[in-house]
Amino acid sequence: MERGVSRWHLFPAWSFLVDFRKGAVMSYSYLPVENTRHFCQDIFIKSGFSESESCDIVDVLLKADLYGIESHGIQRLIRYFLAMQEGSILPQAEVSVVHQTPISEVWDAPKTMGQVVAKKAMETAIEKAKKFGVGTVCVRNSNHYGIAGYYTSMAAAEDLLGVSMTNTEAIAIPTNGRKAMLGTSPIAVCMPADPVNFWYDASTTVVTRGKLEVYRKQEKPLEAGWAADENGQGCADADHVLNNIIGKLGGGIFPLGGETELLGSHKGYGFGMIVEIFTSIFAGGTTSPHVVNSGNGDTSFSFWAIDYGIFGNKAEIKDRLTTLLQEMRESPKALGKDRIYTHGEKEAEMEAKLLESGIPVNEKTLEEIKQIGAHYGLAFDAYFE
Amino acid sequence: MERGVSRWHLFPAWSFLVDFRKGAVMSYSYLPVENTRHFCQDIFIKSGFSESESCDIVDVLLKADLYGIESHGIQRLIRYFLAMQEGSILPQAEVSVVHQTPISEVWDAPKTMGQVVAKKAMETAIEKAKKFGVGTVCVRNSNHYGIAGYYTSMAAAEDLLGVSMTNTEAIAIPTNGRKAMLGTSPIAVCMPADPVNFWYDASTTVVTRGKLEVYRKQEKPLEAGWAADENGQGCADADHVLNNIIGKLGGGIFPLGGETELLGSHKGYGFGMIVEIFTSIFAGGTTSPHVVNSGNGDTSFSFWAIDYGIFGNKAEIKDRLTTLLQEMRESPKALGKDRIYTHGEKEAEMEAKLLESGIPVNEKTLEEIKQIGAHYGLAFDAYFE
Repeated sequence: MERGVSRWHLFPAWSFLVDFRKGAVMSYSYLPVENTRHFCQDIFIKSGFSESESCDIVDVLLKADLYGIESHGIQRLIRYFLAMQEGSILPQAEVSVVHQTPISEVWDAPKTMGQVVAKKAMETAIEKAKKFGVGTVCVRNSNHYGIAGYYTSMAAAEDLLGVSMTNTEAIAIPTNGRKAMLGTSPIAVCMPADPVNFWYDASTTVVTRGKLEVYRKQEKPLEAGWAADENGQGCADADHVLNNIIGKLGGGIFPLGGETELLGSHKGYGFGMIVEIFTSIFAGGTTSPHVVNSGNGDTSFSFWAIDYGIFGNKAEIKDRLTTLLQEMRESPKALGKDRIYTHGEKEAEMEAKLLESGIPVNEKTLEEIKQIGAHYGLAFDAYFE
Repeated sequence: MERGVSRWHLFPAWSFLVDFRKGAVMSYSYLPVENTRHFCQDIFIKSGFSESESCDIVDVLLKADLYGIESHGIQRLIRYFLAMQEGSILPQAEVSVVHQTPISEVWDAPKTMGQVVAKKAMETAIEKAKKFGVGTVCVRNSNHYGIAGYYTSMAAAEDLLGVSMTNTEAIAIPTNGRKAMLGTSPIAVCMPADPVNFWYDASTTVVTRGKLEVYRKQEKPLEAGWAADENGQGCADADHVLNNIIGKLGGGIFPLGGETELLGSHKGYGFGMIVEIFTSIFAGGTTSPHVVNSGNGDTSFSFWAIDYGIFGNKAEIKDRLTTLLQEMRESPKALGKDRIYTHGEKEAEMEAKLLESGIPVNEKTLEEIKQIGAHYGLAFDAYFE
């Protein structure tokens, strides 16, 4: 990220400076959500996607920004743009159904936009779940699909439990290893509850690459248990680890549970393997050790929708979860802590806040999306008048 | 565990002394598996279980011992014996099906022996999966069912993927909490592969209570990130934490990921919640914060069998997993490590070894099972002649 102050002048009230250690300064602007949505949608329409597909793609990206997950938000526009320029993502790419049963489908989706295919796949899983109680769709050879939890929310919106997983480029080393063999491979589960759904979405690694990048930017040593050097041993040097990851020189991120079995490294490694089984192994896609680049057409997804009415009265089941979540939140706090969150609360609160304030966009992303707009003849400023 | 040397003289060749720090000495004997099996089966037959049920119970227990999971093996006989004496487990207890669809069932199983019900529940899930691709059974109000992974192996033996989960008495605190609200709540997943199935079975906490007990016995400080005191803050004093757990005085074990979100505490907490949703919430059973005692009739289970043929050619799918597992095992090792295990390898190797040597039984357990046998008029020694 470049130093300096954004050239963004339209909304000075929404601009602020994030002061990093060592004096690095990064400027963020808060963009109103609906204006940003229209601008980004028009970019995808101009790229060749249908209006409806463009709406879907941008909705997934903006949901990440609204949930405070900047790494999966519109800052990814540049990657998608470049992938389309290179031809690794094609708006006209078609999906073929390679296997089908009443409750399941497997799709081959080369050169597709991950979000477009993923949304259709979860819609198909939902239809099947409504008919048969459970529906599942696996997808292979697609591209990065954004936040896994977007799709589980779709199931919850239909009063179903949703599960979503994706494999990714290998960045995590197995317990006792020194070569990245598994992706950050998130697992997302969403189950309806009041007033906020249980919404879990997290990598099966101890952290994601984005966390290492933030520490590098801040010139902070990495936390013990986060990352390994090329010998597979704990390493606090963010720059060293990231350079190794980029150059595929060995090492990487530890699984959830850290470096050794003492804190459960084998459990995170196991969850990573479970994601691999449900995605690439079932779909017949590329397994994480062989995924060259997540934006390069070799990513697999898994979607499940479960009509939890197969276990009894839905209102009663949902009420039981609502009660448990409330008990969790109200249970006694650790010394110095004033709140216990249930999964999804932080995201719901962030969304409510950012719908008011606009989403934070860093100066680099801002410049990139302006240039992408200009490439298609779209005047960024005109969308924010 | 008492100090001293076992009074077990029958197999001096199989007896050895485990030398703990501080000079504590515990004696183990290696009992031949089939003799032990017959003795334990006869105990359950004498208790009132049918021959077939008794075989099932003992098979689950011995599988744990053979896998090196002593905590879930025949050392639990005394608990089951006492539960039967108290009437909280009754051999004649019946199961009622409270909800049923082609792919699912929910069973109410008060006062049942966990292993008996769990085995039948997974059999039912397997039957459904063979017909419809997926089958699931939830059970409520039962008792501790042994190792979760026993039941997933049943599915794998039928060439299906198996999932098994159970909630338990609350022992884990949520992130930022200081009161135990979730169980150790294991998740088990087994998927066929050669030469060894992928067999994952682990608690969603950083460790289980047994680990704290071992450290207490060895008078070692607990590892950082394992357990909390009554204020919810990291505590290395095993005795203090265990006394708090027993007295329900606050604190407990941290979720997988440890004390704070820095190492992913919220992820382990989330997996614990997912287990709760699939077990007690779906089954209408007691949620972990309200489970008084896992042996006391308020435990819920979840079983899933998935015919992975719903995703294509089974031989090809299995081959893909076999290849991935081999790649994991063969991938470069960390400095100082000579092996990367895939999940289930350690257990398979331990089983092969213990089938030869017999299973290790500590002196306290040995005395207990002898006395239980004597209670039913069964002469322990006669089974080992």
